[in-house]
Amino acid sequence: MLVVMEEGASETQIQEVIDRLVGMGFDVHRSSGVRHTVLGGVGAKDFDPAEVEVMAGVKEAHRISSPYKLASRSFRPQGSVIRVRDVDIGGDRVVVMAGPCSIETPEQIEIIASLVAEAGARAIRGGAFKPRSSPYSFQGHGEEGLKMIREAADRNGLLVISEVMDHIQIPMMMPYVDIFQVGARNMQNFNLLRELGKLRKPVLLKRGIAATIEELLLSAEYILAGGNYDLILCERGIRTFETYTRNTMDISAIPVVKKLSHLPIAADPSHGTGRRDKVAPMARAAVAAGADALLIEVHHDPDKAWSDAAQTVGPEQFRELMKQLRMIAPAVGRSL
Amino acid sequence: MLVVMEEGASETQIQEVIDRLVGMGFDVHRSSGVRHTVLGGVGAKDFDPAEVEVMAGVKEAHRISSPYKLASRSFRPQGSVIRVRDVDIGGDRVVVMAGPCSIETPEQIEIIASLVAEAGARAIRGGAFKPRSSPYSFQGHGEEGLKMIREAADRNGLLVISEVMDHIQIPMMMPYVDIFQVGARNMQNFNLLRELGKLRKPVLLKRGIAATIEELLLSAEYILAGGNYDLILCERGIRTFETYTRNTMDISAIPVVKKLSHLPIAADPSHGTGRRDKVAPMARAAVAAGADALLIEVHHDPDKAWSDAAQTVGPEQFRELMKQLRMIAPAVGRSL
Amino acid sequence: MLVVMEEGASETQIQEVIDRLVGMGFDVHRSSGVRHTVLGGVGAKDFDPAEVEVMAGVKEAHRISSPYKLASRSFRPQGSVIRVRDVDIGGDRVVVMAGPCSIETPEQIEIIASLVAEAGARAIRGGAFKPRSSPYSFQGHGEEGLKMIREAADRNGLLVISEVMDHIQIPMMMPYVDIFQVGARNMQNFNLLRELGKLRKPVLLKRGIAATIEELLLSAEYILAGGNYDLILCERGIRTFETYTRNTMDISAIPVVKKLSHLPIAADPSHGTGRRDKVAPMARAAVAAGADALLIEVHHDPDKAWSDAAQTVGPEQFRELMKQLRMIAPAVGRSL
Amino acid sequence: MLVVMEEGASETQIQEVIDRLVGMGFDVHRSSGVRHTVLGGVGAKDFDPAEVEVMAGVKEAHRISSPYKLASRSFRPQGSVIRVRDVDIGGDRVVVMAGPCSIETPEQIEIIASLVAEAGARAIRGGAFKPRSSPYSFQGHGEEGLKMIREAADRNGLLVISEVMDHIQIPMMMPYVDIFQVGARNMQNFNLLRELGKLRKPVLLKRGIAATIEELLLSAEYILAGGNYDLILCERGIRTFETYTRNTMDISAIPVVKKLSHLPIAADPSHGTGRRDKVAPMARAAVAAGADALLIEVHHDPDKAWSDAAQTVGPEQFRELMKQLRMIAPAVGRSL
Repeated sequence: MLVVMEEGASETQIQEVIDRLVGMGFDVHRSSGVRHTVLGGVGAKDFDPAEVEVMAGVKEAHRISSPYKLASRSFRPQGSVIRVRDVDIGGDRVVVMAGPCSIETPEQIEIIASLVAEAGARAIRGGAFKPRSSPYSFQGHGEEGLKMIREAADRNGLLVISEVMDHIQIPMMMPYVDIFQVGARNMQNFNLLRELGKLRKPVLLKRGIAATIEELLLSAEYILAGGNYDLILCERGIRTFETYTRNTMDISAIPVVKKLSHLPIAADPSHGTGRRDKVAPMARAAVAAGADALLIEVHHDPDKAWSDAAQTVGPEQFRELMKQLRMIAPAVGRSL
Repeated sequence: MLVVMEEGASETQIQEVIDRLVGMGFDVHRSSGVRHTVLGGVGAKDFDPAEVEVMAGVKEAHRISSPYKLASRSFRPQGSVIRVRDVDIGGDRVVVMAGPCSIETPEQIEIIASLVAEAGARAIRGGAFKPRSSPYSFQGHGEEGLKMIREAADRNGLLVISEVMDHIQIPMMMPYVDIFQVGARNMQNFNLLRELGKLRKPVLLKRGIAATIEELLLSAEYILAGGNYDLILCERGIRTFETYTRNTMDISAIPVVKKLSHLPIAADPSHGTGRRDKVAPMARAAVAAGADALLIEVHHDPDKAWSDAAQTVGPEQFRELMKQLRMIAPAVGRSL
Repeated sequence: MLVVMEEGASETQIQEVIDRLVGMGFDVHRSSGVRHTVLGGVGAKDFDPAEVEVMAGVKEAHRISSPYKLASRSFRPQGSVIRVRDVDIGGDRVVVMAGPCSIETPEQIEIIASLVAEAGARAIRGGAFKPRSSPYSFQGHGEEGLKMIREAADRNGLLVISEVMDHIQIPMMMPYVDIFQVGARNMQNFNLLRELGKLRKPVLLKRGIAATIEELLLSAEYILAGGNYDLILCERGIRTFETYTRNTMDISAIPVVKKLSHLPIAADPSHGTGRRDKVAPMARAAVAAGADALLIEVHHDPDKAWSDAAQTVGPEQFRELMKQLRMIAPAVGRSL
Repeated sequence: MLVVMEEGASETQIQEVIDRLVGMGFDVHRSSGVRHTVLGGVGAKDFDPAEVEVMAGVKEAHRISSPYKLASRSFRPQGSVIRVRDVDIGGDRVVVMAGPCSIETPEQIEIIASLVAEAGARAIRGGAFKPRSSPYSFQGHGEEGLKMIREAADRNGLLVISEVMDHIQIPMMMPYVDIFQVGARNMQNFNLLRELGKLRKPVLLKRGIAATIEELLLSAEYILAGGNYDLILCERGIRTFETYTRNTMDISAIPVVKKLSHLPIAADPSHGTGRRDKVAPMARAAVAAGADALLIEVHHDPDKAWSDAAQTVGPEQFRELMKQLRMIAPAVGRSL
């Protein structure tokens, strides 16, 4: 921690801050300039700079070491490649995961699995629990739905990624999914993160709509700290004052995560924009900016999708998009 | 729902939208102006306007009825007063709930209970589970802590309010707390909300840091829909680009909630600002704007608090604040 | 400036940063910890920390001294009181400035001047140039309007505050106004600020809707640096994701400015909320939080106001509000 | 305008709203549903929905027609191509405009002009007036600088784009620039926009950091309304709670502007990110999302640039980026 004392801070005030820092477990270095005295604290594990910032005579206090360690790029400078069965995420190929918002019927999921596999997707997505903001909406098929998606995935050589809403669902979901998806609303559900950290199964963690990139990495730390290193992060839009799009997809988070962390980063242009006709431009932008994977909502008849219809693309749009992505990937040294 | 067609939308496009609306359960009224045709849909229960907005020829689609019903002011125009034992929340008196961030020791909680009761608080707050963003921090005393706070509260004639983090904690917490507090991160934890809706015990629901007021009311609807009407809402700061304060406390949410809903609204200036010296001004502002209750972090020795030290006020500051609030309340027809 | 080197930064990288800092005019202090080397730079005048942050081996760079000096509290620890004719702003009395959005007719401005003076306002506000976001709206009466407001003010013993939109309007406005108001959109119009800095007439500077408090103080510095110390700052709402109110009025900016700067701080609840029925609660909140002055849109017949009708209060509401403010002010050691 | 009355609004209230709408110049259509009465107003030119929204019995009021007309896509469904000398903006080729933040010396601008021309840029950018947020910084060379950039541009077959800060600078700048650039801080400087509307010279208008896309289009309307149709819009980042990047570049604004307007849209990844190493990923993303032009800060020795050094790329990075953009453009049917 770095503490900058106010101009005119008294020697007593400076000494009190030093004592406090020592009490918090820091080695303290003192450096006095013309206007300000600066104290550098080194070595403490976990602390809140604001606690020092409220002390008398203190102008500001900054954290130096990132509070995340296992998630930081310096932990694995070469970057992580997450292997899920025969698919590498974070490697040379950009991995597309596509499918409906909700698992609806065995027929629906089979049609979609077959169409996304044919177009080049490597995983099928589909929700069995639907955390709707209105209590009066369709809430998902649960385990029955997971069976449907597993079978469709197996028939089409796809991985299954599906959202876990609550830690009590984990054991039930284990046999069906290849990747546990954690939604934006659960990014700071620490009980859930802790349980996922105990697994040896890949997790995709979405950024919350009001979360900074640093907070996303700190949530990642929870899972890594449990020993589960098979972790993929995902940008899906943050909330801003712009109302035309549901959220503002923060494409710059992709290169920022790449710099700060070794973990692969995916992008979800469907939730990131909330509008069907914006999915393709933002998917292209994400790959051009260096995304390792994409999560896209696809339905064979989007207007009839039971949920998220407005942001779901149809078969033709999806195939066209895959074609464009194949042209863009080589510009960043990747293939699809 | 109101649907505005684009200028030059064809008759076929208009007809397709009408068919879709009818299919969604709406009665449709058509109104044609010089430039735009407008369709008014009445009667459907739950829907996403974006589904219509992506149809050909549609310029925009708006929801008319609020998606919340039980939470809306029109449900109880006179406003709700929540009675918790002998304390009324939403009535003539502004209710102050105060106490430490974490329950630390029996001595600590007793000292604080006694000091806040003497100063005029009606409830003691204190956390037994600490959802820290870093996995390496103190995580709370659990049931042991709840016992401590219950005893201290009983000795000092106070209610107990404490945060529930997960629905599996509810049965254990039931005997100890008078009000279940739902934190900002759990505002859209629908499993938790649903379980709280089944109780007949008061709940205080905090606004998420990226939640609109409408979303707060929709989360309230989850609890009300279960039959639990003893609900208090709470403003505690939203995330904006301003970084000097941890969050920007949206004081205007207080009169807005008062207009849109019958539910009482509390304010939490400790989390709302993150800084000890800003707690008093914002507490005063909240009461002046019409808040029904306040939630304030108080510790007998704030610098030594185990958590949230930077935003916790000491005994002297708390007493001084209570004195100021007693002067302000009459300006809005209240007492303390 | 404080520069934190990355773990494992080479000695060459550290030396290059030191050379750069010296080249920028800093005295450099070096401090090496277990994981990080920290460099403290003292003494340079103006610089961009990002320039160092992009150098090889640098983890982060922070500015220590605030880039504003004349605006900072340490420049005048006791605070500034701005005397405008016989009115003190920043002293014991909270000053209310009220009036219509636009100056419409001599009759209108006389009626309003008389009613706000009677209710206790000390200044009349009214715009002669209307910077409308649509090019097709009423654009103001210009000098003719200023004559009207000056005469009405003089007849009623009020100061005149009116907005200056462009530096070329200053000489024309000089004889009519007592306080030049700078609107939110012009907070960073540095040509305008520079010209106002040359005057010896008070200025009220509004915070931009996307400006941090630090940026507001830096804009204040422009005016102060020119030698004009009669400056009042004003909070009027920032843009956030919340859409129910036009802007989110940042009440916490009031105590924050009080701490960081010696300048008086006003609040404008009319623009801060955009809704008539929210003006009174937010005006009360502002005074309770310590505001030195209020700027309120009042019209004798608000529904017929030529501009800003939705956020303008009528005579009855204004008188009622003044009564409430008189009750609140003593709680913060003020009168009205 | 669409007005939704509250449930239980009285017939008198409804009639008062109808009268008001008629008074504002609307033809009114009334439609009564089970719970709400809806009034559709057609035909008025300019109005503020909030004026009706504050009337008794009104639940909400929405604008139907966009307040911009000349800027809307329906005005020129095929899209606009802006011809500047021999360069088309908005056509098949993506146009790159590159150069230093400030014009420093004749040698500097010549070196940079030659290097960006060689790499494939079609215009050189460079500022002659520097609107620095600190009053103590370098403020630009003025006309002298414009002469330097004009000569360098002519020698290298480039267009000149440079920022105009104030309408009084226009006549002086006319002989030197091919495109007037309006910076983010001036997006709502209506005096400046009005003067630029009278010219017959191209303008590039940047989005303000707190401006919605609709507000950008409304500012565009000011220029178009004056008869100047040679207008290019530009996304350069909006302010959000994320602090790692200076702004959050809203890549989705590119396809949104394309849908709502016929005007070409450029992207400025230098200001959009504020960090040199993020310029290339965001430039690639912008082209992949459909941008018509890019504005990039390039310097032959970025570390020594007099301003914006942190976000300026060097020759090698720029050439590498141009190569990548040439690979991406074909995926969206463009070339470079």
